[in-house]
Amino acid sequence: MRYLAGLNPLAKVAEILPLVKKIGDVKKIATWDAVGYVAARDVAAPHDYPPYPRAAYDGYAVSSEATPGRFKVVGRVLVGQFRRDLSLKPGETVYVTVGAFLPEGADAVVPEEAVKREGDYVEVERRYEKYANVDPPGSYVQRGALLVKQGQVITPFDVVGLLDVGVTTVPVYRKATVGIVATGDELVVPPIDPEVAAELVMRGKVIESTATLVEWYIRTFMPYVEVREKVVTGDKHEEVRAAVDRFLAQYDAVIITGGAGPSEIDHFYKLGYQGLRGFRMRPGRPTSVAVVEGKPIFGLSGYPISALHGVVRIVEPVLRHMANVTRGMGQGWTYATITQDVRGEMAQIVRVRLELGEGGLYATPIKVHHHSFTEVDACGVALIPPGGVKKGDVVAVLAYRDVRRLGPTLG
Amino acid sequence: MRYLAGLNPLAKVAEILPLVKKIGDVKKIATWDAVGYVAARDVAAPHDYPPYPRAAYDGYAVSSEATPGRFKVVGRVLVGQFRRDLSLKPGETVYVTVGAFLPEGADAVVPEEAVKREGDYVEVERRYEKYANVDPPGSYVQRGALLVKQGQVITPFDVVGLLDVGVTTVPVYRKATVGIVATGDELVVPPIDPEVAAELVMRGKVIESTATLVEWYIRTFMPYVEVREKVVTGDKHEEVRAAVDRFLAQYDAVIITGGAGPSEIDHFYKLGYQGLRGFRMRPGRPTSVAVVEGKPIFGLSGYPISALHGVVRIVEPVLRHMANVTRGMGQGWTYATITQDVRGEMAQIVRVRLELGEGGLYATPIKVHHHSFTEVDACGVALIPPGGVKKGDVVAVLAYRDVRRLGPTLG
Repeated sequence: MRYLAGLNPLAKVAEILPLVKKIGDVKKIATWDAVGYVAARDVAAPHDYPPYPRAAYDGYAVSSEATPGRFKVVGRVLVGQFRRDLSLKPGETVYVTVGAFLPEGADAVVPEEAVKREGDYVEVERRYEKYANVDPPGSYVQRGALLVKQGQVITPFDVVGLLDVGVTTVPVYRKATVGIVATGDELVVPPIDPEVAAELVMRGKVIESTATLVEWYIRTFMPYVEVREKVVTGDKHEEVRAAVDRFLAQYDAVIITGGAGPSEIDHFYKLGYQGLRGFRMRPGRPTSVAVVEGKPIFGLSGYPISALHGVVRIVEPVLRHMANVTRGMGQGWTYATITQDVRGEMAQIVRVRLELGEGGLYATPIKVHHHSFTEVDACGVALIPPGGVKKGDVVAVLAYRDVRRLGPTLG
Repeated sequence: MRYLAGLNPLAKVAEILPLVKKIGDVKKIATWDAVGYVAARDVAAPHDYPPYPRAAYDGYAVSSEATPGRFKVVGRVLVGQFRRDLSLKPGETVYVTVGAFLPEGADAVVPEEAVKREGDYVEVERRYEKYANVDPPGSYVQRGALLVKQGQVITPFDVVGLLDVGVTTVPVYRKATVGIVATGDELVVPPIDPEVAAELVMRGKVIESTATLVEWYIRTFMPYVEVREKVVTGDKHEEVRAAVDRFLAQYDAVIITGGAGPSEIDHFYKLGYQGLRGFRMRPGRPTSVAVVEGKPIFGLSGYPISALHGVVRIVEPVLRHMANVTRGMGQGWTYATITQDVRGEMAQIVRVRLELGEGGLYATPIKVHHHSFTEVDACGVALIPPGGVKKGDVVAVLAYRDVRRLGPTLG
């Protein structure tokens, strides 16, 4: 009866958050290394991108005003080549490939399959408007536009968007570090001979999988936390205490799995920390948390599902707070109701904002330049079937930001 | 006009599936290494688990028929200890901890906080039914029960469930192997000095991120595929061909990114394979696929979003077929409408089956032993708030199987 008498409501987690020392260290890292880190500042575009008109199609760069007309081909600019020194004179054109900046004097691209080429000349038979088949300057992103918000976990899609427009470093918080202590005399730790392991299970041993599941959850859903070390101890309390003390000295947080019942073996209790012991949740009632000099220590059940419940309800909200996260990373396919018609005869993929409403998730398409990933409010891509969809239809969505409405707890 | 004239409908992908050589190699691996592999056979429970009555609570193991009554404490059996040699005589009890198999003669556990202990004796004041605070034999799983279906991608939750009941090996298909060839003279490949990289972008270079995004998608959503190698080549066709030829010899599939437009640089076209060139999808029309001696070769756009679209619509269905997958792995939080009331004053986590219906995803709670993960039809865990939910309410669900309704294409 040491704790079950007074289980805490989940909302009590909010009370210990102010005791947690938040990660304050900020460093600038290369954008390509930034997936899973938390942005420490808002990141804005330092310049328009593209900085010059850019070919959106393979073909001939011309002055739109001179179309229709006949042009002399005076060279070629392939994507990746920088030929802004080139300046087209009236009646001149260059061959360009998708992604190439146009030379001075050109503002439209005539698709290569739409011209008649005769030797060094091409014949353009109709009028092309300014920026036809061209990404105008600033069409991906305009200088000062917000690309990543402080507190957002940087996703693979953010990295693509940032690199696309030349943002090659981002200020991030260092990751929170965690040590996991899996306790239990009954634990068998792989790798061992599988046949031996199977026999041991039939004799009452347990193959360690709880701490492994906890580690998997953290790695997958909390990439802003680094599991630095995982040790498996027996139930001898001195051994557990030694591991916890060492982790507490070395890392930002400690997670103990197992030995969390009302039994004689109750490590969290024996460690003697003040904190919240036991929550009104099933399974996982023995889940506990204390904060020691700003560092949280979690006690989780030894049962996988109970431990997972403890992670989702208690560990994640506390470490998210510690890591300064306002919006997590998602990586899952889901379904959402689309909030407006999307027309189109072809199958499409469109960027969407996701919001939780009465009936579940709602996806609102975002108008963005078709190649750009720089829309800060986008949090997923939706698949539109051939023929389009009507408002109210359900579409498959790959969510790359966390879709959950997050408070201090998920109660 | 080399291919845009005749874009293929997505459904055409189904036609090339029969040309793909499916992975046939089967090996037996340790369960703890099996996450992401595809089960090559149905896996059934080889025996009941637990094999004996198992304590579900810390306390005193007694014969239910002798309650209420006074018992002499003759020993203790902690979880992990195997004391089936012990046989309780009438009037005897042993102290047990959660997870311990009861000795012969005991079939119930009296919680330690519910007894009066005096020296070597405990007083049990009320009647305890058979299996009170006990997991009966076979309560986790019964011999012959299906644990994993052939074709399922093994998830972290399956591993926990299998190990729990002593299934320490699983027959799996070897993973499909892939090589990625990222092409383009414009590509800049990290790691390089970020400032230099930023300047290069302003001069028309592109930091390689398309193949990286493709690789991320495969690693995250297609764990049954191993990206063995990724090379970045320029646009010199001989260089691309050499890489493709080598990968084709070494791996099960090849993915080419970039150079997939109608321009002079069109590697897929120049490679000369017969196959499907261009699909009715936007973006990503130049997406192509051919099958050479049973091995698929994919041509993807150099643009990240277009390449991703090609992966989701074309690459994933083909490689899923090759890898014998009938049900993929999911790893995402989503929301679903619950199909029945769940009562309870405490916050809960419940295992659910997920199905796609008219209004989106529907979650149906599955009755399973509260600690067990062995329910083959479960595909997620749902969070139930304190006080429970009503049928029709929307709940947060962590999906660990793919929720998509999968056909040969996602069109």
